Order: sequence, then structure tokens, then C-alpha cells
Amino acid sequence: MTAIEEIRKKLKAENLGAYVIAHGNRYIGQDILDSEHKLKKLCGFSGSAGIAVVTENTTYLLVDGRYELQARQETDSQEVTVMDLLPRFKNVCDLLKPLEITTVGYDAWCHTVAEMEFIKRRYFDMKFVDTGDWLGTNTKSGAEIMERGIEFSGQSREEKIAVVQNMLKDQQADYYLFTSADSVSWLMNIYASDLPYSPVVRAYALLAKNGEVLLYGDNLKTDLPSGNWQEFAARMAKLGEVKLMYDAHNAPEKIKASVEAETKLIKAPDICQMLKAEKNATELQGMKNCHIRDGVALSKCLCWLDENYQGKTELDVVEKLHEFRAEQKYFFSESFATIAGFAENGAVVHYQPSEKTNKELKEGSLLLLDSGGQYLDGTTDVTRTVVLGKPTEEMIKDFTSVLKAHIALASTVFPSGTSGMKLDILARSQLWTEGVDYKHGTGHGVACFGNVHEGPISISSGGSDYGFKSNMITSDEPGVYKENAYGIRTENLLYTAESEYSGYLKFNILTKVPIDKRLIDKYMLSAGEQMWLNNYHKDVYDCLAPYMNEKEEMWLKDVCSPL
Amino acid sequence: MTAIEEIRKKLKAENLGAYVIAHGNRYIGQDILDSEHKLKKLCGFSGSAGIAVVTENTTYLLVDGRYELQARQETDSQEVTVMDLLPRFKNVCDLLKPLEITTVGYDAWCHTVAEMEFIKRRYFDMKFVDTGDWLGTNTKSGAEIMERGIEFSGQSREEKIAVVQNMLKDQQADYYLFTSADSVSWLMNIYASDLPYSPVVRAYALLAKNGEVLLYGDNLKTDLPSGNWQEFAARMAKLGEVKLMYDAHNAPEKIKASVEAETKLIKAPDICQMLKAEKNATELQGMKNCHIRDGVALSKCLCWLDENYQGKTELDVVEKLHEFRAEQKYFFSESFATIAGFAENGAVVHYQPSEKTNKELKEGSLLLLDSGGQYLDGTTDVTRTVVLGKPTEEMIKDFTSVLKAHIALASTVFPSGTSGMKLDILARSQLWTEGVDYKHGTGHGVACFGNVHEGPISISSGGSDYGFKSNMITSDEPGVYKENAYGIRTENLLYTAESEYSGYLKFNILTKVPIDKRLIDKYMLSAGEQMWLNNYHKDVYDCLAPYMNEKEEMWLKDVCSPL
Repeated sequence: MTAIEEIRKKLKAENLGAYVIAHGNRYIGQDILDSEHKLKKLCGFSGSAGIAVVTENTTYLLVDGRYELQARQETDSQEVTVMDLLPRFKNVCDLLKPLEITTVGYDAWCHTVAEMEFIKRRYFDMKFVDTGDWLGTNTKSGAEIMERGIEFSGQSREEKIAVVQNMLKDQQADYYLFTSADSVSWLMNIYASDLPYSPVVRAYALLAKNGEVLLYGDNLKTDLPSGNWQEFAARMAKLGEVKLMYDAHNAPEKIKASVEAETKLIKAPDICQMLKAEKNATELQGMKNCHIRDGVALSKCLCWLDENYQGKTELDVVEKLHEFRAEQKYFFSESFATIAGFAENGAVVHYQPSEKTNKELKEGSLLLLDSGGQYLDGTTDVTRTVVLGKPTEEMIKDFTSVLKAHIALASTVFPSGTSGMKLDILARSQLWTEGVDYKHGTGHGVACFGNVHEGPISISSGGSDYGFKSNMITSDEPGVYKENAYGIRTENLLYTAESEYSGYLKFNILTKVPIDKRLIDKYMLSAGEQMWLNNYHKDVYDCLAPYMNEKEEMWLKDVCSPL
Repeated sequence: MTAIEEIRKKLKAENLGAYVIAHGNRYIGQDILDSEHKLKKLCGFSGSAGIAVVTENTTYLLVDGRYELQARQETDSQEVTVMDLLPRFKNVCDLLKPLEITTVGYDAWCHTVAEMEFIKRRYFDMKFVDTGDWLGTNTKSGAEIMERGIEFSGQSREEKIAVVQNMLKDQQADYYLFTSADSVSWLMNIYASDLPYSPVVRAYALLAKNGEVLLYGDNLKTDLPSGNWQEFAARMAKLGEVKLMYDAHNAPEKIKASVEAETKLIKAPDICQMLKAEKNATELQGMKNCHIRDGVALSKCLCWLDENYQGKTELDVVEKLHEFRAEQKYFFSESFATIAGFAENGAVVHYQPSEKTNKELKEGSLLLLDSGGQYLDGTTDVTRTVVLGKPTEEMIKDFTSVLKAHIALASTVFPSGTSGMKLDILARSQLWTEGVDYKHGTGHGVACFGNVHEGPISISSGGSDYGFKSNMITSDEPGVYKENAYGIRTENLLYTAESEYSGYLKFNILTKVPIDKRLIDKYMLSAGEQMWLNNYHKDVYDCLAPYMNEKEEMWLKDVCSPL
């Protein structure tokens, strides 16, 4: 019996009209292991965002624009109806309403308090039943927890805990329950290696006003005070008459059902999410340092590629790049699965090469290479698009437009507190003048040795209205995607710093990797844009040259020479 | 007894803690006559936005930053406490709470349904009592209603009414009550001349599903079916078991109390507000035509000013400009009180010269001239800043920065449906790079022979998220204000049009008036910006030259010559 058939059997037995399957698990918004991939188990879709709903007759899979093509390729169109709809519970309900399906099963561990409150208020005439995890894919792996030293974290666990204690005191509350793995890891200065791309420890932390912290998770291997999920449930049920604070936007709805009536739940934004976005001096220095090493690795790879692409494949590039990165000091892992999309594969925004899709590299098209590393001192995320052989005029025009968009954001000055939702258009409008847009955000926050995507900032049109402060890190990654032809994206990480004007911030660049000048039409750039590029390349050369061999250094000098 | 003393007496008699006084009347958001100015009658404040509250001991006057200085100058500081707080009922309540004042009188004609619902929900522990108009300043003037011909309106009353009838049918409703004077005037193709700057007819319109329309107002002089406020009240009270639609954001709360229980009130956005924002071909042609005449008038005035400014004052310029405008075909009135701010007066954003503040024009500073006209075929709003004598380097730098901001918005291309809230930063960020900002929006909608400010679009950072469609009109008016020195603003009206890319809009320029080249640093402009200015000036010259005398034509040729 297939997974879908099994769910249908249960729907019948439980007298439900539909069962909703989120992408994630109780660590909402965090990476998952392949063995935990519910949607893959359900229908073969392997992307990193989506929501499915199984009814008696149909399985709907909702994915955003990035994953539409991939979802269609990976699923059986007889069985699964793929829809280009934001993967939200709300959109599932809007699908079910006209079908007159009003009883819906779901797993209350996999949806936040905020989401389910919204859903139950909006669809007050539907019935939502917490049926638990019907696919049996919730996390089971136990993590060995490692301690992150002050030389990397820049702030002790005690200091961080004290900030939360102060907040509890201000609010006259007894506990804060942190349910976000990245918050817990940052707060406790701990990391783990069970996830392939993120060093976060998947655990909850219950922090008491006296400063005691208890970690809860799957079979955690640590000397820190900790418990398993049974112990968590028991503890929650016996908190008694206390005030427990939590973040309704990252805590599973299940939390609400797990406490007794006398325990008062208070919603409050997870303070760690905000604190860790503002990097301290040690973290910022670590980010700068690891970006030089990462730049060395990627630049060596690009130099190798220039001479050796003939007969190689996308997967060869992924492997070679991994080798160069793995040689670097403090290397821990990739920060996400490397995207190496040649020619038309580059047009699939979140493409990852597999044995099935792997393309041979040939003269005359573009390779889009989006990759990053986790180093003990920081996290990188960089995209370069390079031409193999000679580019067409159209490629040059598109690449230069993307570069103008990239520079427009990177070189802006703005009042402290301006949100990413406002800044987004600065990059995007450069492409609009060519009648072109991209179906993804312009930038996302990046942790320092944590998740390569982190909140609360987000540079996108529907993004967060959280304002930028100093020492925050964001990507800057506009792109152009031509279906069945090629994809172009140019991505650097930037950090905010005080500008020369009081109250105004500017961006400084972390990423140090040459931008392919063969794809630039100098005459499309203003004098200011040309200067930006020449200054950037001078800086890249100065930072990387000392770590290159003779041949690589000559290559670097050439690709970094002024326009 | 002063007005405030009279209110205090009533407070005592009615056992209330405070009485709230809005700026407007039952035509919320419309211009008012001087005789209707409640806040002026209350305490002398003559500005166009504010809210006051009288308690037993104090009178608070809340005004936004633009009016703070003026409010302090115009009121008695012993009696009135002026506060730089957005003039919102909410902010009044926040003031009263700590004073333990919980019973508040107000006039339910002067606050919208939406506002009072918000207030009563938020301040559920306070008591709000509709005590009516204690100052006796509600509108009394009767308007003579004139018919606007199809040669100007481009669409018959019957066609417009039919659109509303269709909406009523769709919603299975019986009536729409239009409470916004500009909507009523547009719907019925009527105008009046009782307001100094806006030709709107101050009336409500009750539109029945059979297409019948009844106008209600103060002593309306018209052959159209109409009634006075007593008749309105009687009609409302006897609607019976029907569905009445209205816009909670522009209808007074009083409406809710005026119908019986069996009449079902349905909130729905005022469709006229949206329809009239998209100009039809006749209106757009009228706007183009009147902008040429208006450009002729203002350019003649600027030519006169160049030669004659010595010994003249701000008020002389206002008068001269009026003369040039009044000579033009179809001239009806100014569209707002002309702002002529010389030197430091230009730094006061909403400055209007009076006998008291009137400055003499002298060599070596800037004159900011913001004005507009109502013509039977359209409405204009234009700001030019010109130098008298020789400018300083700082003036040139500031003026050129403002011009860059102006051009950035005017020359953008964007997907249809993009909101003004998103576009705002395109202009503003050009000034941010100099560490400068302006405390007003970048653009507002403009009616065709109606209010010079109209919704639903608004280009400002906290503005409307209503998306632009084709044939909408907005101003583009970034500025720089240097306290005690000068103000600079460059404002054109633009209209949206299809761009060469499907689904993307661009702006075309309506305003035809030279931009002062003496204040431009050519080397601060990109090649594209220079081209924009040269093309603009060529167009201005071509449009205006035929209407200039020989001397003016020579002047125009010079000021419109390429950079």
C-alpha cells in the first residue's frame, strides 16, 4: 500500500475529509533529514518547502514558484495535483472549501500556535482534528551536543541567559520556552552535526527565571541538563500556576494543549531571534575571516573550471568545490546543497544536480553556482554565474542587468530601522526597466555558524517589516531566469554598518569572489557602478592573492583587473 | 464666555469628562470653509488638520509636525496645550486614560464608522457619548449645483450609475449610500463653487438598485432630486428591511445610529473612489490640455519673476501667478492656496505667505513655488524652486539631489498592481545617499477637476497598498528642507501608461514647466538623467512656445536648452 493509500484508509476510519501534511516537524522552519522528509515519503517531492493535503480522491501538493517544475517532475501526475500556490494551511483550506470538505486532520506538532489560531478563526465553520503524525516521519535522530567556545561565539552562555532572565523579570514571568532550534543553539553556545547543512542542535530549551535551563529533544547526548519528549510532556503538564512565555510564531500548537489550565501562556517574540541577528564583534570578525577562506576555495574552483570544464558535469563541479572548501581551516560542512545549474538547469531556481538531471558542461552557455560553507567561525552563501566559452549578447545584457540590480541594493544608504520589505524594490526595479522580474526574495538573513537562512530580517516584497540595525547580515541575490535557456544570479553577503551620516546605515560586503567580467557590458553601467565593480575586484584580489598558487594568482589578477 | 468656557459648562451639565473636536464636519476628509473651522473657533488654530479635546482643566490640541509651530503661534499657551501628536482620536484617548477621564463626548457626524469601531473596541472601558456639534460650526452653506458636460467628464451619469447598480446586484443589496463629496460629484457629473479650492459638491447620494439617486445636503440648489438633512434622517429611519451598502472609512458613525434594526448595513469600499482614480480618455486628454495652459501661466510668471523680482514679495508672486492663471481658458480657481516660500520660509513644508510672514525677494536665495489650478477640463499641482541671482554650491547640490530623486520615480517601470508604498523608496533613497530625508510623502493621487489630493493611491512609506493601474495620476514631489535657510521641492504630475513590456507600467509626465538649470550640477547626473532632463525640456518648449510672446519665447528657449 502506498503512503497515500494508507492515509486514505485512515481518513475513512477516522471519518475525516482530508489530512494535511506540512513539510517540517516539531522544529518548525529548520532543516530536516532525508528520512524525515514527509512530502518525499508521501509522493516523491524532495524540495525544501511545500504542504500537501490528501482527500478521498486527490492529493494536492502546494509549492511556490521556485519548486513548481521540480514538483511536477518528481511526482506522478495521475496521483498528485501540483499547484503553484504559497504552501500555507490557509490555501489548503481555500482548496477544500469548494469541495465541501469540512473535517480536516493534521499534526499539531507541525503547525505553529499563530498559524492554527488564524486558521481556526478564519475557517470557523470547519473542524480541525489533531491526528498526529500518520507518516511516521517525525524526528528520531539523537544529536551529540558540542560546546561552542567563546573565541567563536563572542558572548558566554551566562550572559545570554541573563538577558532572557531580565526579560522574564520585566514581564513578571517564570519561564521562557524556546522552541526554535537555532535560538536554543545560539543561547546555549552549542552545536551538533546530525543535519547535513546546519550545525544547530534540534532541541527546545525551558529557561527558568533563576537561570536554569533544561533542554528537551530526541535522545540528546550531552552533559547539560536535558530530557526526552516524554519528560518534556510530563514537565509541561506539571508546571502549575506559573507564567510561561513562548513565541506563537515558532512554537507548535501542541504546546498549548500540553499545559494545564492554571499555567498561564504568554505570547512574546523569541528574543534570541532578534539578538542573534545583530552580530557581535567576534562573530563579525569570524564572518569576515571565513569569507576570505571561502572566497579562496570558490575562486580556486572557478580558476580550475575555466581550464577544465570540457567533459565535466555539474556534479563534478559540486565535488571539486567541496574539495576546495574542505581544505580550508575550520571547515565544518556545506551550508546547503550546492546548486550547480548548467544552461537550462540554471533556470530552475532551486535546482540541485542529481544523477538523473546531471548535465555535461559545454561551450556557449552559463553555469550558475550557488553554494556556501559552514565554518566554525561563520557561515557563507555565494552565487556566481560564469560563462563557458563565448557568451551571447542576450546573456551579457541579462548578466549586466542583474549586476546593476545587485549593486543598487549593495550601495544604498538608508535610515536605521528601514525594513527589508522597503529595500527590496531597489534591486528589483533595475530589472523591471527591462520588463523582467524574479520569483524569489532579494535577500535573507544569515546566521554566524547556524542556519544559512535566518530571521527576522528579509529583503523581499512581501517580507518582514523588521528594521535593519547595525551588524546585521543579509544576502543580496537578484537573478534572471530564462526557461529552457539559462539562469543568472549574483549573490554576495553584506553586513550593515554606520554610514557617514548619523542615523543612516550602509552595507559592507563580506563575500570575496570575482564577478565574471566576460558577461558585463561596460556601457550599460554608470560611472558609479563601474567604480563599484573595480573597487570590489581590487579588494577581492588583495584578500585572496596571498592564498593562491602562481597559476591561480595570474588568473585572479586577470579576472580582477579594472573594466 | 469663550468657546472653551461654553464647552466646560456643557461638560458639567452633561456630567462628561471631556469633549473631542475633530477638524472636519460630516464631509469627512474634504475641504472646509473658514466659517466651519471648529478648531479656529475653539482656540484660533487655522491649520488644515488637527484634533482637540477639552477637559475641565485643559484644552489639548494635537497637530502633526507640519503644524506644530503654527499652532503654538496661533493659540494662547495659558489655555491650550499644543502637542506634536498625529491628530487621531486614539491619541486623544491615550491622553485621557492617565487622567482617569472615562466619559467622552464627541460629534458622531465628524468621525467615521471605522474609526469609532476601532476606538470603542480598543478603549472598551471608556464611555463615548454622541453629544453632537457643541460649537455650532457644522456646514450650513448651500451650494448651487452645476452640471458637468460629457465633453469634460467623458462618461455619462447614467453609465456611472449603471456600474454601481451592477455592484448592488452582485451583492444582492438595495442601496449604496455615498458619503464622500468627491465620489458624489464624480458619480453625478456635478460641481459647485462654494469651496475656495475644490469644485466638489458637498452632498451625500443615496443610490437605489433601480438607479434612482437622491442627493442630501445643506440647502442644495439643484433640479436633481434632493433633500435636506431632516429629510435624510427621515429617509434613513424608514428604509425598512433592505440592505444598505456604505464605506465605513468615509461614512460618519452617525449613519449607523440613523437606521432601524431591520435595515442591514453592509460595509463595502466606495467604488467611486476606485473608478475615478482611473481616468477615462476624455479626462486624460483634459488633464493634458489644462497642463499646457497651466504650464504657460506658470512659465510666464517665472519669466516675469526673473526680470522683476527686485523689490517684490512672496504675496506679489502669488498675485501675479493668479493673474496669469486666470487668463487661461477654462480657469475655475486655484486648486489650493499657493505656497510661495522665499529663503527660510521655503523650509516650512506647508507654508502659505500671509501679511504677517510675507518676505521680500532678494538676490542669493531660493523661492519655492507650489501651486495649482482647477480648470473645467482638469486639475494641476506643480512645484518649482528657482534661484534669484546666483546660487551657492550647497543649493546646487541639494537641488540636483532632489532632481535625481524626482527622475528616479518618474522614469521607473514597474509591474501593474505595484503599490505606492513600494515605489516611495525609489525617490527617497536618492536623498538617503546624502543622509537627507523629507517628512512628507513622495506622491498623492489627483482628481480631474476635483480634489487636488485624492485616494486610493499614495506614494509614501506608510501609504496605501492600493496598486497602480493604467491612467492613474500621481504627483512626484521629493524635497529637501534646510531649516532657517531654504526649501527645495520639484513636483510634476505623472500618469501611468502601458510600457513596452506586457504587464508593466511606466509614468508619463503631465506637467510642462521648465526646471531651473542654474541649480543643476550636470556632473552629478548620469547620462540617463541628463537625457531625461533634455527630453523633458524639449517637450516643454514645443508645448509652450506657441503661447508665449516674443520675449517670453526667447526666455523659454534659453531655459529649455540642453544641459
